[in-house]
Amino acid sequence: MEYKPVSFKEKFSKFTEYWSPKIIAQLNDYHFKLAKVRGEFVWHAHPETDEVFIVIHGNLNILLRDGDVILREGEMFVVPKGVEHKPVANDECHILLVEPVGTVNTGNVVDALTADNKAWI
Amino acid sequence: MEYKPVSFKEKFSKFTEYWSPKIIAQLNDYHFKLAKVRGEFVWHAHPETDEVFIVIHGNLNILLRDGDVILREGEMFVVPKGVEHKPVANDECHILLVEPVGTVNTGNVVDALTADNKAWI
Repeated sequence: MEYKPVSFKEKFSKFTEYWSPKIIAQLNDYHFKLAKVRGEFVWHAHPETDEVFIVIHGNLNILLRDGDVILREGEMFVVPKGVEHKPVANDECHILLVEPVGTVNTGNVVDALTADNKAWI
Repeated sequence: MEYKPVSFKEKFSKFTEYWSPKIIAQLNDYHFKLAKVRGEFVWHAHPETDEVFIVIHGNLNILLRDGDVILREGEMFVVPKGVEHKPVANDECHILLVEPVGTVNTGNVVDALTADNKAWI
């Protein structure tokens, strides 16, 4: 059988939209998603789950109600379940998200930025 | 509150052993683990779970009974639940593993390479 790796670079080359995570792999009932981000996202929380952010390229600020974290390339952060956060990227940033199947990018908030949570690429 | 990102580079600088995954983060009931690998691992399977390999530095071959996959930096692969595999790295390779809390590196096999599955770094 021919097995193929998933290349972040190749997958990122296939889309341009910001704040629109694309599923690239599934681990049990978790999805690995790539997203390009730039500018300010909305404040939201995921009441049911933690959420992992890994920066593949660029810098990402994650604002929290009681502090911020700045993630650079090769750094990760786990936003705890239920904690309000607002991702902000001054310049284009490429990230890998890990979260349960079905997780919505805007969590408990419905917004113009709410994206399809079933989009594979 | 002061929030800190987890830096792969900083964590990798803290250990030298091969085939001994170190936990760096927890997402719900999943662990993110870093490992340095070189040479041949043992054939094994994880009867209860899929397993994610992401290459941070170097090249990793994952042998499967009916084919192989070669992972380069910035590539990932999901070994399906129950599928026998044998990781091999000709040169030192740095990887990120994602798997359920408690997963043992040698899966269903007990070997000299079986490592502590509770080691944080």
